[in-house]
Parts: sequence; structure tokens; C-alpha cells
Amino acid sequence: MKLTIIYEKLKEGIKTVERLAQKSLTLPILQNILLKTEKNFLSFSATNLEVGIKYWSLSKNEKEGQVAVPARVLSQLVDFLPDKSVNLETHENNLLITCQNHKTTIKGFSAEEFPIIPEIKEGEKISLPCAEFCQALNQVADIASPSVARPEISGVYFSFEKDLIKIVATDSFRLGEQKLYIKSQLSQGYSLILPQQTVKEVINIFSQKDGDLKIYFSPNQILFEFPMPEMAHPQVQLISRLIEGNYPDYEAIIPQKTTTQMLVQRNEFINQIKSASLFSGKTNEILFKIDPKKEKIEILSQNSDLGDYQSSLPAKIKGKETEISFNFRFLIDGLLKINTSEVSFELTDGEGPAILKPVGENKFVYIAMPIKKG
Amino acid sequence: MKLTIIYEKLKEGIKTVERLAQKSLTLPILQNILLKTEKNFLSFSATNLEVGIKYWSLSKNEKEGQVAVPARVLSQLVDFLPDKSVNLETHENNLLITCQNHKTTIKGFSAEEFPIIPEIKEGEKISLPCAEFCQALNQVADIASPSVARPEISGVYFSFEKDLIKIVATDSFRLGEQKLYIKSQLSQGYSLILPQQTVKEVINIFSQKDGDLKIYFSPNQILFEFPMPEMAHPQVQLISRLIEGNYPDYEAIIPQKTTTQMLVQRNEFINQIKSASLFSGKTNEILFKIDPKKEKIEILSQNSDLGDYQSSLPAKIKGKETEISFNFRFLIDGLLKINTSEVSFELTDGEGPAILKPVGENKFVYIAMPIKKG
Repeated sequence: MKLTIIYEKLKEGIKTVERLAQKSLTLPILQNILLKTEKNFLSFSATNLEVGIKYWSLSKNEKEGQVAVPARVLSQLVDFLPDKSVNLETHENNLLITCQNHKTTIKGFSAEEFPIIPEIKEGEKISLPCAEFCQALNQVADIASPSVARPEISGVYFSFEKDLIKIVATDSFRLGEQKLYIKSQLSQGYSLILPQQTVKEVINIFSQKDGDLKIYFSPNQILFEFPMPEMAHPQVQLISRLIEGNYPDYEAIIPQKTTTQMLVQRNEFINQIKSASLFSGKTNEILFKIDPKKEKIEILSQNSDLGDYQSSLPAKIKGKETEISFNFRFLIDGLLKINTSEVSFELTDGEGPAILKPVGENKFVYIAMPIKKG
Repeated sequence: MKLTIIYEKLKEGIKTVERLAQKSLTLPILQNILLKTEKNFLSFSATNLEVGIKYWSLSKNEKEGQVAVPARVLSQLVDFLPDKSVNLETHENNLLITCQNHKTTIKGFSAEEFPIIPEIKEGEKISLPCAEFCQALNQVADIASPSVARPEISGVYFSFEKDLIKIVATDSFRLGEQKLYIKSQLSQGYSLILPQQTVKEVINIFSQKDGDLKIYFSPNQILFEFPMPEMAHPQVQLISRLIEGNYPDYEAIIPQKTTTQMLVQRNEFINQIKSASLFSGKTNEILFKIDPKKEKIEILSQNSDLGDYQSSLPAKIKGKETEISFNFRFLIDGLLKINTSEVSFELTDGEGPAILKPVGENKFVYIAMPIKKG
């Protein structure tokens, strides 16, 4: 391999894929980035066997070749190189990097040791705005949590319908659903569960891109692709396995009818919950006293070691008088996902799930389970 | 105790002293802040027995009193309170905090359990600009390092002369000396060793203050004091014990004559050292090849696992040709303390200490020991 590449392009390629090249005791080759000449491109690949990322950049290739290079040292080195054109050349499995007055040799590995990242060639695809899609993912991505017993809820659920995508995640204590309306494109519906890390990588790689993301469906895998500016060639591809299994019937959990409805100011609500949290103790429990005759919610917490806290939050209240306790973290997490200044907070009789929703838009719903009494 | 205080003043008082109120298994009372009414002030005190800080703020006192309150919960709570006037009231050792629609009770402790922070009443004092003094401290504070065997070098050394302060720190591998010229004020010289944590607290508390800091000397302690704006009363006092012992004769270590002298661009020098550091291995060793006949320094490193690095740095070189190795960290630490674009780098014959200095000012000197050969 022998080639010349613009510094910025080399850096972008490495930075795009390096996060996947993590330490692996069982398969050390995964700590490497595979560099490969392809026609008039240099490609950068990394994988953790669950997700694979490939990035292409234009380069001036003099001699074909490929080599696997430790991601960490390559990434650190590139931070210090001057912003000039960079020459890459292999001598056996060593990569010689020359840039102005810097000359480095990095010991690499044979490209044959590097796992093959699968490709998706057939199947239906859709196209949708990158930034909007990533923003929707971001609303729910962190709610999913690793579960050995129920691997299906450790991922993020997608229901691709004709002109609507529903994105859902839960950890069984709370649940978030984000809707994204798209132009009708699909001949049939697809539902699938993506690993949480894949979702985070998609956000990481594509959220800053300005343009359309293509998604290709296949039975066991999914491919996300973004094109190179003004060229037919892809710039980045992310391919991921799917989680097998059936996602729980989450729509049955979202209460259709609530018994107490409140409208509150988001920031003041967050502020008072955070204050109360200081005295909530190990259970994270804070108590709400809600009386529709008053125009405020009382928020209380107490801790036998530290002391106690009490505040009142102005609110418009309808429905039943009630007292109910929550783990403050579940409420805060939901409120931080809502951007409107006013928030709708609804409760269901007894110990049923509570709903948090933005006021004035209906794409996002957050469900939190209260703490059971006694 | 019963009083009213402006929110901002309460917050400033707590934030100023809280860093000293750390967890202590042997003396749990040290995790508290002592609040005390004093005439028309509220005072905030915290100590770790080595350093003590006291802050005063104007308050409207209705009833005298004092109480010790856990710093952590008090500090967290105050972050969430609205920016309104705050009422503080004690019921036995509980502190009731009322602010708009927030009502909190924090369980506190009797003020009698809180250690007495000593006062300095006599002795000579000097007065000097806060910001300039803190900046000088900042140049050397992090060089000192804990040493059980030689407690005197675990602190920062001060030599207060008639119109000059020398501030020095070393960890025996490198040394920094910063000079600060002041108006002549003292009848005699004082030399003393301050604990490193005291120096960091002084920087932390006083570096943002606009005005003069007063320093009071006493045989075993030192007091730093900053006044309340437009009042004769102090706003903050920091009192610290001194480290006993004699500081080494550091001036003997600074080479009076060097054998190779170089002038280099600071940023490029840092950049090439950092690049080379990636291949420096466990010893952090990088090699310099210096030849006065060339107009550049060669920088080299190699690592049997990762690969090797080589670069050349443009330099004006005088004196002897030489090869010398350094722990890259010691050089980087020194270079980061120099703000001029050009740096003077001087070596002494054999394996003597190297000097790093800014070009165009002579207040700061940094000494680094090279790595001995074989």
C-alpha cells in the first residue's frame, strides 16, 4: 500500500470508526482499524462483531494494499500531525506515516486477521433526514438497559410503518415512545429491535450530518448509509445485527384513561424534584400530595439522617385528589426529554403508571411507574 | 439563631468554604460548615485542621446563635433555591431554611463540637495584588508532590524579601521558581514552607478577587485576608499551619553555566514532544539529538510493541553537540507553564540539569533532570 491523503480526511476517517475498535481480550485484532485502498479511495473499517463501521475518503493511491493498525496510537498520533498532506506506506505489516517533518512507523497486523464485516445487498430501503432521525433516537436511547433475562428490552424497538416510525425503549420501570412522521415509502411494515450500542453509534456518527440517511432492511441485519458529498459513493456505512425476540406489547401499558391531570412549568418542576431528591434517601422516594381544590402540588421528602424538605408547585389540576410516590430519577429523566415550557403530568387510579408529555406537540410520551405503597 | 440573608450571599459563603469540609472518619464534625451570627454578619467556617477558611456576609440577624450543618447537603440544596431572600432559623441543632415556596430542615450538630480555628493577632503583614500573587502561585503549585521521607519538599517554599517574593516547588526531578516583585514593605525577610493544599486553596479562593490580599506572618502559621468591598471588615480569611523543616538550598541546583543553548518555538516543541511520547514506552523516554551545525533538533522515540517516531524541530543552536534523553512529562509540564511563543532550552554537560525559560522575561525558571544513560 502506498498513497497520499489530505490530513483532514485521514483524521475524519480514523475518528469516525475508532470508537468501535475497543480492547478485546478474546480477539485483540478488534482493537485495530483496517485501512484498505479501493479504486481511488482509502477505506477505514472497525467492528466489535455486533456493529461494524466503514468510512471512505478520496486518496491518491500509488500502490494497492491493506493493513490493520492499532486504533489508539493511530488516533492519538493524528491529533498531533500538522494539517498537511500525509503519506501512508506499508512495509510488510508496518505502516509508515510521513507528514512534513514527522516520520512514524506503527506496527500493524495482516489484514487477513481482521474479521469480515458483512454486507447487505438486497432488501427494501427508506431514506430520511439524518438529523431528525438521530434526534428521535436520542429521546429514548438511554432508557433501555441491559437485561440478561429479557434481552429484547435491552434494545431499542422500531416499528417502521408506511409513513410513521415509532421508536420505543423501556427498562420496565419507565418507557419512552417517540414518533417520527415520514413520507410514505415502504411496501410493508418492519419491526425490529436494535442493540442499544448500535443506536448510540448511529447518533454519534450521523447526528451532525446534513442530508438524508438511507436505511436498508434485511432479516437479521440493518444497514445505515450516508453518501459522500456530491458523489454516488457512500461516505459512511454502519451495519448492525438485530436483537432476536418479540418486543413486549408496550402500547397496552400506556394508560388510555387517567384519573388526575396536571399542567406544570417544566423548569420549576425539575428544580423542586431535584431539591426534594436531596432528602429522598436510598429509595429515591419523593411524595406528591395533589388536591384539585388547591392550585398547587405539594412535594415532600424526608431522611432520618439528614432532615426533610417540602415545597409547593403551582399547577392546574383536574380529576381526583391523590397522594403518590415516585423514584425521583424516573421523573427527572422524563422531564429532561421534554423541551416545552409546560408539561402535562397525568396519574391513573391507585398505583397505575403516570404519563409525562410535552404540551403542544404529540410525538413524545413518557411513562413512569410509581413506588408501591407499604 | 434567626436571620435573613440574600440568596447570593448565602450561596457565596457556602461555596467559598465547603471545599474544606471533607469526609473525615476520625472527626466527622469536619464535614460540617459552622454558621454563626456575629453582630450584623453571618459567618461561615470550615477546616480540615491544616487549613481553615472563614467567610463573612451581611445579614439581618434577629436572634444570635450558631450551628454546624453538613456541608454537602447544604451546598446541594442552595443550588436549587430560588434567588430570593432566605430565612435561617435553628430549632435546637436543626437548621430550618425557608425560601419562597421551599421549606427545608437540615439536621445539624452543636457548634461546640466544631474545632476552634486559631487566629493570628500579632506580627508583621504585607499587602499585594490578589490576582498577580495567585498567578505566581499557580506557576509552581502542582510541581510539589507528597513526600513522607522529605516533608519539606511536599510543600511550596516562599522567600519573602524586602521587595521580592520567590516561590519555589520541586519533586526532586524538576523544580520551578517564580519571582514576584513587590513594593518594599517588610522590616525583615521571612522564609516559610506552605502545604500544597493551602496553596491550592489560596488560588481557589483569591484568584478571582480584584484588589489587595493581606498576608500576616506568625512563627507557626500564616493568615491570608481579603476585605469586604467598601468595608473595614474582612470578607474571607484563610489560616494555615506551616511545614516545619529547612527547604533544600535550591539555588545551588540551578546551573549557572550551560553548555548547549537552544531557542525553539514553544507550540511546535510541545507538539513534537507529545507525538514522540506516544512511542516512549513505560519509561516515558524521548531522545534529543542536538547538533549546532544543523538548524534543527532531532526528536526520537521507539517502542518495541508499537513502533517508532522521529521528527525535526527548527531551532537556533549554540554550544556543544549532544544527545540527551528526558521523561517527556517533565518537559511538557514545564513548557505548559511558559506563555511566550519562543522558549529557551539549555543543557549542561553530561547529565546535569536542563533549563527551560520564557524568552523576553526573567521571572520564571524551570529545571528538569535528564534520564541517566544505561
